[in-house]
Formats: sequence, C-alpha cells, structure tokens
Amino acid sequence: MTVTRDDIQLAAQRITGRVRRTPVLRVSPTLTLKLELLQHVGSFKPRGAFNRLLSAKEQGTLTGQGVVTASGGNAGLAVAYAARELGVPARIFVPVNAPATKVARLRTLEADVVQVGNEYAEAYEAALVASEESGALIVHAFDQPEVVAGQGTLGLELLAELDGFDTVLVAVGGGGLIAGIATAIGDRARVLGVEPELAPTLHAALEADRPVDVQVGGVAADSLGARRLGALAFEAVKANDVRSLLVGEDAIVAARTELWRDYQLAVEHGAAVTYAALRSGVYQPAADERVVVVVCGANTDLSTIG
Amino acid sequence: MTVTRDDIQLAAQRITGRVRRTPVLRVSPTLTLKLELLQHVGSFKPRGAFNRLLSAKEQGTLTGQGVVTASGGNAGLAVAYAARELGVPARIFVPVNAPATKVARLRTLEADVVQVGNEYAEAYEAALVASEESGALIVHAFDQPEVVAGQGTLGLELLAELDGFDTVLVAVGGGGLIAGIATAIGDRARVLGVEPELAPTLHAALEADRPVDVQVGGVAADSLGARRLGALAFEAVKANDVRSLLVGEDAIVAARTELWRDYQLAVEHGAAVTYAALRSGVYQPAADERVVVVVCGANTDLSTIG
Ligand SMILES: Cc1ncc(COP(=O)(O)O)c(C=O)c1O
Ligand SMILES: Cc1ncc(COP(=O)(O)O)c(C=O)c1O
Repeated sequence: MTVTRDDIQLAAQRITGRVRRTPVLRVSPTLTLKLELLQHVGSFKPRGAFNRLLSAKEQGTLTGQGVVTASGGNAGLAVAYAARELGVPARIFVPVNAPATKVARLRTLEADVVQVGNEYAEAYEAALVASEESGALIVHAFDQPEVVAGQGTLGLELLAELDGFDTVLVAVGGGGLIAGIATAIGDRARVLGVEPELAPTLHAALEADRPVDVQVGGVAADSLGARRLGALAFEAVKANDVRSLLVGEDAIVAARTELWRDYQLAVEHGAAVTYAALRSGVYQPAADERVVVVVCGANTDLSTIG
Repeated sequence: MTVTRDDIQLAAQRITGRVRRTPVLRVSPTLTLKLELLQHVGSFKPRGAFNRLLSAKEQGTLTGQGVVTASGGNAGLAVAYAARELGVPARIFVPVNAPATKVARLRTLEADVVQVGNEYAEAYEAALVASEESGALIVHAFDQPEVVAGQGTLGLELLAELDGFDTVLVAVGGGGLIAGIATAIGDRARVLGVEPELAPTLHAALEADRPVDVQVGGVAADSLGARRLGALAFEAVKANDVRSLLVGEDAIVAARTELWRDYQLAVEHGAAVTYAALRSGVYQPAADERVVVVVCGANTDLSTIG
C-alpha cells in the first residue's frame, strides 16, 4: 500500500480542474507562502477527497450510494464538496458535540449529517458500519492511499511553480498531507512536519518508531487533533527522513495574528503552526535557505482574529 | 502632467523589492482574481506611495523633514509604511472623527498622527500648510503623477503574469488606481471602473465631461469616498475609453460575504465592488470573455464578516 510519486502524478491528472491550483506569495527571496487556504472549502482536503472519489469512479466502486466519512472539520467539508460536484450523495458522521456552525456548513453543501457518539472514533465506527451496510464508499480523513496521493499534488505544484527551494514546512495531524508532500518532493528539498506541543502525533511516532496514541488538545485540536499518525504517513516520513518540530500554544496564536496583520490572511490555528515554527525560532533557517511555508486552512471564526 | 506607460515602467523598476508582486488566483478559464489585498498594509496604495517617495529621493526633495499626507485610510497607512521603510518621518493628517482603530494602526507604523477638522478636505488643507512650512514632501492620495504611475504597476503585473485577458474590473474612488491601470494596459484589454451607486465619482465625471463633486456615502465610503475624480484620472479614463459600472449597496455586501465564503478572502467593502459587478449581473461578460477582478483591499473589521 505504499504511495509513490507516480500515484501522485496520476492524482494530479485526475483532479485537474476540480481543485484550485493555489497561488504562492513570495515574501522575500528566502520566504514563500503557499496559499492553500484559498482552496475550495478552505483547506487542502479536496485534493485527497477528489482523488479518492474519482479513483473509485474509474473502478466502478462509486455508486449511487455515494460516500460516507467521519469528520466535523475540513475533511468532512471536502468530502461533501467533492460529492456534490460529482453528483453523488454524501453522509458525514460527526460527534454529537460538533460545533453547530460546522454542521450547518456541511448541510449547505447538501451533505446528510449524522451526529453520533462523543468523539471522532465513535463517529468513524458508525461511518464504517454505514459503508458496509449501504455499499457507500468510505473516505478516510488521512490514512488512505488515494487521499495521501491527492494531498501530495500540493508538493508537485511547489516543484513546478518555484525555481528551487530548500525546505518546506507542513502542518501534521494524522499525517496525510505531509505523507503526500514528502513523497512528491522526495530528496529535492527538506520536508519538515510542524505540530502543536499539545498534539504531537508525528513526534511521538518518531520517538516510538511506530504510530502511537497521544493526548491531543490545544487551540489547533479541531484540525490537528488526530490521535495517532496514520500508517501511510509513518511509512512516508521514515522513507523521506521527515523531522517533527513542536510549537507552543502562544506561538501558534501569535503567528495567526501576524498572518492577518502582515499578510491579510485569515487562517485557522492549525494552519498557523508552520509560520509559528519560523516566527518563534523553533526553526531557524540558514541565512540563504529558501523556505516554503504551507498555509493550509482558513476555516476559522473571523471574530476571533480581527 | 500626463502619465505615460514609460512612467509606469520606470515606477515598476523603482519600487521593485519594496512592494509585493501579488499573486493571482485562477478561478476558472474565464475568471482570475488579482490578490492585491495581500500587498503590504493591505491595499495597492504602497505602490504609489513608494513611487512618490523614491522619485523625490532621486530628485533630492525627500529630506529629513519626511512626508505629510491627509488620509485616515489605506493611503495614510501606505505613506506611513513607505516612510518607515525608507527611514523618514511621516505626519498624517486625519479628520477628528477618524476611527480610533485606524489612528492606532497608523501609530504602530510610527507615524505622527494629527487629528484636525471635520472632514478630509480640512485635513488635506492642514497637510498642505504643514508641507509648505516644513518642506516635508506632500503625498496626495490619488491625484499626483508619481502616485498614478505607481498604482499602474499593478497593470503591468497583470500583463506579465497572464497570457491574455479581455477585461479588467477596477474599483474607483479618486481614480488613481484606474488611471494607472488603464494607462498601463492601454488597448491590450478593456478596463472598466466599478464604483458604488452612492459614490459615483467616475460616473459623474463622464456624464459632465469633467470631474465634478458628488455626494458620497454607503458601506464603501471609507475607501471609495473621494468627493471627485482626480484630474489625472479623468485624463486617463478619457484617453483609454474607460466606462463606469455602478453597483448597489446590497450587491457590495453580498459580494464581500461571498469572497469570504467561496475564496477565503477577507476584504473591505471598497474592494468587493469589482466582484459585486460580476455577481450581481451589472457586468455580464460574454461566454468566453476572460475577466480579471482586482481585489484591492483587506483593511476591514473581521468581526463584520465571519
Ligand atoms: C487546516 C488543516 N491543516 C492540517 C491538517 C492536518 O492534515 P493531516 O491530518 O493530513 O496531517 C488538517 C486536517 O484536518 C487541516 O484541516
Ligand atoms: C481598497 C481600496 N480600493 C480602491 C480605492 C480607490 O482608489 P483610488 O482613489 O485611486 O480610485 C482605495 C482608496 O483608498 C482603496 O483603499
């Protein structure tokens, strides 16, 4: 089940025209922001969702039963959006305590939202059962080959758009995004994972040399709150020598404020961790090191920034 | 005092490295957004401000007395920012009723903010007097050749970045931005001015065949509330056959909401008028017409969007 660079190239062809090729902002000769927060429904997640759905369509496993997934966040929005675009129904399982605004947003995307259980794991179980019963395609938030390959298309865009860079900073939750980007980029640049001190899935997996459960919390938990790194992600980070950088809560909050004040980018906390690693000095690039910061999500309550 | 395409090309050289080359977002084969809201201090205004200051520096008229201007909005922020970057003092005259948040922001840019008079015209008079008394360089918000030439660099970027477009929609207040863009683009594409029904400076000038005072008000008045079109703008729009499109208040508000919901762009009302012209049907492009929408400002209270 290894995801390869070829898989990512195929994914890029498959999802062309479905996802936005997001722009980059060149801040200085050594700093570029990849503005993935401008993607459809506000995060990179449609890349993986479209690749999963379109792959299944090619194989005949995307039926009139549509898709199911479990997520109250960006993955759910992406699956709902992709399903609507492709004209199939989406059923999204979310915990009963999912924020009302997210549930409402999912419904505007015509998804059938089912609230079940007190946490993500229970919602996922319910999604699995529904998939088995109905034949609907299940989409995982990060640990499926098509999802990882889809997220990896962001890495291919960086290689195509920029004439060379040394380092790319990527936020890590369950690790689908970093797995895809690390595989796409390989040894062409250094790929670094950034995660909150309070949600250290990659850090813990590297330390234990296998994915292990961690406690998750903090300001970025709604997007980076997976409880353990995915198996595909672990494989990809080991193969590509990806390190983990941990950022504190204050650094995340300060980076988010600064992204608005200095770049007019309204981002969610999970998408501010990469910039936080730079601004807080957790990552200190060499003087001439060309760094790309992936800014990957905008689904936030604006009244908490301005 | 005509501004030429050569002036704009010189301006582009002069301000390189001082302003951001802002990215574009390709929404579809026929729609591109120019993300000028990502410029320093949140609007296109630093283009003109840097060109004015750096031109004066070349001519020896930028002294230790620095610069003065009148503006409680984006022009003031831009002059304060440019002056700080170039290491000269800035004194900004604003009406006494200028919003406290804008005054505070100007002060964080180290500007000396002077509150005087009840409206812009009085603040401008005070700025003129201060300039004459002190020898500080006066920067006009829109009606100065260097300012127009600086704003025009945005048009050159469009020509360089895109492989062809048919139409570009530009917000109009005093007309510095559209004058520069129309001059830069000439007959390579159609340039259309968009303004609120409640602040129709270009519309009124075209009707009277000269700049005339208009009543200004409405949601976008803080950025598009100049009382009459500048003389340079009038010349440029006549030379380049620029038309005016008027958009209503509801269309502006709806476009601003949609720019956040569908593109994750938090913009001020004045910067939403161009998208409003498209979404409301005030401008109806042909089926294959390639339209560029300039999204030119982000200085807004986020709590009024989310
Ligand atoms: C904005 C944002 N950034 C990063 C992540 C983490 O992605 P992954 O779980 O693939 O590591 C997520 C996941 O939801 C997200 O929404
Ligand atoms: C965001 C924004 N858009 C448009 C304008 C209008 O520019 P001009 O006065 O050059 O027409 C302004 C002027 O302040 C502005 O701040």
